[in-house]
Amino acid sequence: VATSVAELAKLVGGRVDGDGTRPVHGISSLAEAGPDQISFLANPRYAQQVLDTRAGAVVVDERFDGDVATTLIRCSNPDAALARIAEVFAPEGPVAAPGVHPTAVVSPTARLGEGVSVGAMTFIDDEVEIGPGTILRPNVTIGRGATLGGQCLIYPQVTIRERCRLGDRVIVHAGSVVGSDGFGYVMDEGRRIKVPQIGCVVLEDDVEIGANVTIDRARFGETRLERGVKIDNLVQIAHNVRIGEGTVIVSLCAIAGSTTLGKNCVLAGQVAIDGHLTIGDNVIMAAKSGVTKDVPSGSVIGGFPAQGHKADLRLKAELRRLAGSGGRLGAIERRLAALESPAAQNEGD
Amino acid sequence: VATSVAELAKLVGGRVDGDGTRPVHGISSLAEAGPDQISFLANPRYAQQVLDTRAGAVVVDERFDGDVATTLIRCSNPDAALARIAEVFAPEGPVAAPGVHPTAVVSPTARLGEGVSVGAMTFIDDEVEIGPGTILRPNVTIGRGATLGGQCLIYPQVTIRERCRLGDRVIVHAGSVVGSDGFGYVMDEGRRIKVPQIGCVVLEDDVEIGANVTIDRARFGETRLERGVKIDNLVQIAHNVRIGEGTVIVSLCAIAGSTTLGKNCVLAGQVAIDGHLTIGDNVIMAAKSGVTKDVPSGSVIGGFPAQGHKADLRLKAELRRLAGSGGRLGAIERRLAALESPAAQNEGD
Amino acid sequence: VATSVAELAKLVGGRVDGDGTRPVHGISSLAEAGPDQISFLANPRYAQQVLDTRAGAVVVDERFDGDVATTLIRCSNPDAALARIAEVFAPEGPVAAPGVHPTAVVSPTARLGEGVSVGAMTFIDDEVEIGPGTILRPNVTIGRGATLGGQCLIYPQVTIRERCRLGDRVIVHAGSVVGSDGFGYVMDEGRRIKVPQIGCVVLEDDVEIGANVTIDRARFGETRLERGVKIDNLVQIAHNVRIGEGTVIVSLCAIAGSTTLGKNCVLAGQVAIDGHLTIGDNVIMAAKSGVTKDVPSGSVIGGFPAQGHKADLRLKAELRRLAGSGGRLGAIERRLAALESPAAQNEGD
Repeated sequence: VATSVAELAKLVGGRVDGDGTRPVHGISSLAEAGPDQISFLANPRYAQQVLDTRAGAVVVDERFDGDVATTLIRCSNPDAALARIAEVFAPEGPVAAPGVHPTAVVSPTARLGEGVSVGAMTFIDDEVEIGPGTILRPNVTIGRGATLGGQCLIYPQVTIRERCRLGDRVIVHAGSVVGSDGFGYVMDEGRRIKVPQIGCVVLEDDVEIGANVTIDRARFGETRLERGVKIDNLVQIAHNVRIGEGTVIVSLCAIAGSTTLGKNCVLAGQVAIDGHLTIGDNVIMAAKSGVTKDVPSGSVIGGFPAQGHKADLRLKAELRRLAGSGGRLGAIERRLAALESPAAQNEGD
Repeated sequence: VATSVAELAKLVGGRVDGDGTRPVHGISSLAEAGPDQISFLANPRYAQQVLDTRAGAVVVDERFDGDVATTLIRCSNPDAALARIAEVFAPEGPVAAPGVHPTAVVSPTARLGEGVSVGAMTFIDDEVEIGPGTILRPNVTIGRGATLGGQCLIYPQVTIRERCRLGDRVIVHAGSVVGSDGFGYVMDEGRRIKVPQIGCVVLEDDVEIGANVTIDRARFGETRLERGVKIDNLVQIAHNVRIGEGTVIVSLCAIAGSTTLGKNCVLAGQVAIDGHLTIGDNVIMAAKSGVTKDVPSGSVIGGFPAQGHKADLRLKAELRRLAGSGGRLGAIERRLAALESPAAQNEGD
Repeated sequence: VATSVAELAKLVGGRVDGDGTRPVHGISSLAEAGPDQISFLANPRYAQQVLDTRAGAVVVDERFDGDVATTLIRCSNPDAALARIAEVFAPEGPVAAPGVHPTAVVSPTARLGEGVSVGAMTFIDDEVEIGPGTILRPNVTIGRGATLGGQCLIYPQVTIRERCRLGDRVIVHAGSVVGSDGFGYVMDEGRRIKVPQIGCVVLEDDVEIGANVTIDRARFGETRLERGVKIDNLVQIAHNVRIGEGTVIVSLCAIAGSTTLGKNCVLAGQVAIDGHLTIGDNVIMAAKSGVTKDVPSGSVIGGFPAQGHKADLRLKAELRRLAGSGGRLGAIERRLAALESPAAQNEGD
């Protein structure tokens, strides 16, 4: 792909500051871009890199005030501009021609929308419904009675179990499992008996699920991820969890059964949340948080058991300072004892 | 499925308290059930929900004493009753007709018991033995010389590596790997050399393995999960680990090599256990515990490094109280200095 | 396989101390080995086990000075000797005959080197290149334009996405995903937009990847694991991470985006490292570390936020001692108040 700085500026609604005729053949980071590539400054923290970059052009915020020779594209949202420009230079993806690969196995009772692409060795069970334009890559398994919306993209080795329902434009990365049995047993006369998990999983429109994620079906009812939820790799979502619109969960988190998360929360890596809790909207959880009780909307929390994030950081800092105090305490007690002794009192006389 | 309160009471050995002729068409939680559904009160904590439920009937403990208009089924173990009733209403599962799907690849030297079902695109290598009634879903891979008992259920995308042995009624959920190489290297003249992992994995009768779990084969000998062990999703079991009968492990735990767990232990989420340790029977580990030494039977532990769970909670609570003590210490020292100064002594005169 | 103590000693460059003619039919641990098996003492901590073993022979360090009747093979590196001897007794692996299984789907534009083995139901997309002697087990998916070196071993259910590049002798265990999209979104007018992840993953020679691992492709450029990196099961490597030669990462670790690790680091289980950090060479991280800032070469760290490992252990120990100090502080304050009171002063008179 070859284009120019001016054309890219037009694409992203930006303003050229420098030579708009400059040809652009690719996109890269400030550190790695060469003279025929465009780069971008998303985080002002890295402004120094704009001075040092070999990039032919750089996308910056319209208020950027660095004194640089490089051609700039100034725009109101460099992050969004980057996403759009990256699409221009994205290498051609896998060929996923509409139609069913001859080695795929599709039940005669499955219904496939227009333009659906079914990859090699993919299995589609009875009564499955798939919306128009959805792409199933090779070696995928779709269970009986599952429904997928339109324009979904299901990567290889994914399992979507029976009766799960996906909205439109849902992306599921390789190796993930949607609709595995919830982890539920009851004791009966000393033996552990499996509780049938007869519910399903619902992934609403625009949900994206990372690689090797596991999302358990509900015991009854649904495990539901609302519109636009984004899940990173290796995350565990237990049965009957509900995750609100736009919430983002980073890798290796675990949400235990029947917990509800609000909208637009952000969970950093390795967070664990107990079962049967209610987490509000816009909650931010620091990495490795362990959440043991309900959390009101707007909270920023951290630590285990989780508390306010600032309080948690302050606690850790204070404890580090305190850790040396064992000696201080002993010294104080010795000084006190000296003051309290009759001799001390006498000295005072 | 349609039945009545009286029939369900009979099924679970319970007693009807109200209208036994009431029709029941499904099962759901107290919050979600409608008038033609049955629900249950497993945890007395949620007794209030029995007052508010729209469910047509509720399964409760025989000693339940709430003053409610709803029809009740009283029984000695509502949990177990629930599991049984849920089976009644379970939707029909995937059709897994006995026989080998025409697209499956089964070695001529493999031996399949009566009624075995082999799904589409499933691969069964040489010398594999599979007991009667076992179901392999699509896209499964069974390695050379592995043996599976009867009535097992192996979900899609599972890999069972060569020479692993599964008992009867073992369930392995989608994407799990049984018998991957243990993680073992030795240094030789500055290079890291792989130690061959020539052992296997044994899963005894009634073991259930969640989705995307990894269980490494032994270096020599066996990695063994005894009868009735239940493993949640995304758990790592390293080489030569042994897990005692009935032990339950929640998601994202990691058990390092050669550690032995006793019977009927319960590990909450994200626990890590060091290698070469011995954990007794009936040990309970709180979420995120990090276990660094042997643990006697019957312990309840938590924290990192793990200690008694109550001691760990007390420690955390005390440290939170202490965290403000930096100022207290300084104030004490100032007061002491004042008392110790000659002036102070003089004042005292 | 049957051999003798003398032959095995010769193989590993060791010296027989005892009966070299003794036949050896297998290898096992000291605790489990029988009289026709060889075993080994790798860790001097377990020297006692050499006294108790029933093994026919034991490989020990040349300086081992236990007074035992058992035949010994003394050598300079018992660990490496063990690895070599284990190979002698490794059971025959899966049959992976050169050639393409008739059920595999290989694009006509893919190029396969001499002796390549492609398992049943494996899918190889357009323009893939695979070096000589590489083995792909069943149900593998290789994306468009990916390249694999020679003598690689790719286990079942693995996905290698488009344009990723593997060197020679790379091993990828079952269920792992190489080249999933990095987790990147930008906000644009209140909506979260996916940033195209147009880079790739490079695994250099002799890299080994455990089971159900996820390695994200770079946003631009590469996510790169240098020569000899070894990754355990269920590890998450985010986009644009670079991991230096010989580094070892144990299970359930998460490395966030754009972080660089040096050479020969060792990360124990469940470590998390923030994004955009630089970790030096030869850094050791204790289990469950949470790393929030750059780490100089040669550091041994632990805790969260991570600090020097010894300092972290000391901190934890001191805090446990301190935790009881709340009462001590109160007592001190009461004693101080008593000393400060006029009465006290009067008593002193």
